[in-house]
Amino acid sequence: MAQKTVAGPEIERLIQLLAKLPGLGPRSARRAALHLIKKKEQLLVPLADAMGVAVNEIGVCSICGTVDTSDPCTICSDPRREQDVLVVVEDVADLWALERAGAVNARYHVLGGTLSPLDGIGPDDLNLTSLVDRCAAEGFSEIILAISATVEGQTTAHYIMDQLSHLDVQVTRLAHGVPVGGELDYLDEGTLAQALKARTRFD
Amino acid sequence: MAQKTVAGPEIERLIQLLAKLPGLGPRSARRAALHLIKKKEQLLVPLADAMGVAVNEIGVCSICGTVDTSDPCTICSDPRREQDVLVVVEDVADLWALERAGAVNARYHVLGGTLSPLDGIGPDDLNLTSLVDRCAAEGFSEIILAISATVEGQTTAHYIMDQLSHLDVQVTRLAHGVPVGGELDYLDEGTLAQALKARTRFD
Repeated sequence: MAQKTVAGPEIERLIQLLAKLPGLGPRSARRAALHLIKKKEQLLVPLADAMGVAVNEIGVCSICGTVDTSDPCTICSDPRREQDVLVVVEDVADLWALERAGAVNARYHVLGGTLSPLDGIGPDDLNLTSLVDRCAAEGFSEIILAISATVEGQTTAHYIMDQLSHLDVQVTRLAHGVPVGGELDYLDEGTLAQALKARTRFD
Repeated sequence: MAQKTVAGPEIERLIQLLAKLPGLGPRSARRAALHLIKKKEQLLVPLADAMGVAVNEIGVCSICGTVDTSDPCTICSDPRREQDVLVVVEDVADLWALERAGAVNARYHVLGGTLSPLDGIGPDDLNLTSLVDRCAAEGFSEIILAISATVEGQTTAHYIMDQLSHLDVQVTRLAHGVPVGGELDYLDEGTLAQALKARTRFD
């Protein structure tokens, strides 16, 4: 970083830690640190407090695996949610995205990733055993696999199908097709083929 | 943000505060918050600590206006720096940039911005009085105006020249020219004209 000491090591340490956030590099971390120091009362103090609260209060839900300040989490303990539908997602970020879309009012199970033998991620590294146990114990009527349409995601989906095959439960997955607002010209052939195959009547 | 409550308000607050950092938007702030929560011990705890230290220990140097944990700052209290050269910069970020370049070993004065009548920023909003007082008291031999080559920057430079005209001190400014590594094709006419005018003998 700096060739000479321009400020105390405390500022350098703040910059180095900020640079580890996704979306911030060494340069933007320096700008962010300076912004924080300048806006001490409006931003630095509240953010330091919010992080302190996060350190002490945020944990992982023992049922579904999402992050929250309560365990069981807000979603798992919400009686207004459909109790017999379970949405399986890779990551907490995907759960948040589905909740923002507001298209489903069910419960969730967060896998914590996808199967990826090349990266050394096997079934024991994901929340798969707890998913199978949960499905066996709770008797859901539908399991929606909301998993990425990548090779790893589909491998994981097939593995889950296999693990749940002895249960009397309907397993579904998200539809493939043209993204809303998407131009055909920019889509890959695989998506176009799937979108054609699953075409619906235009009323 | 979220249409339904997906997690405690503590997480939402953390996301909203992170979104105020330069370089992070609402979407990347959410990703950063999740990253922090997942890497609790490696990142969230140290960053919360570093921010707490910053809140308590970092302040503004009463001499030059930079931010540091000590007052006078590390630079102002460094006897190995040239004591009779003063570099005037707009912002702490510019001071850091000059220090990284390592091209000058002098002392600094941070203005805190540039004159901008349209934005309502006049001489009293900048550290200009303290600059004039400092120049009168310390008897520098050279004042280097390392200020942006923008309209506001040049207005500010001229204002400073004017304020220091009664003192027997040499005022200089940074050279204009082709940035190192820059292609002529992409440079504006003003820079090219200045670079031609200030051309030097090629030895």
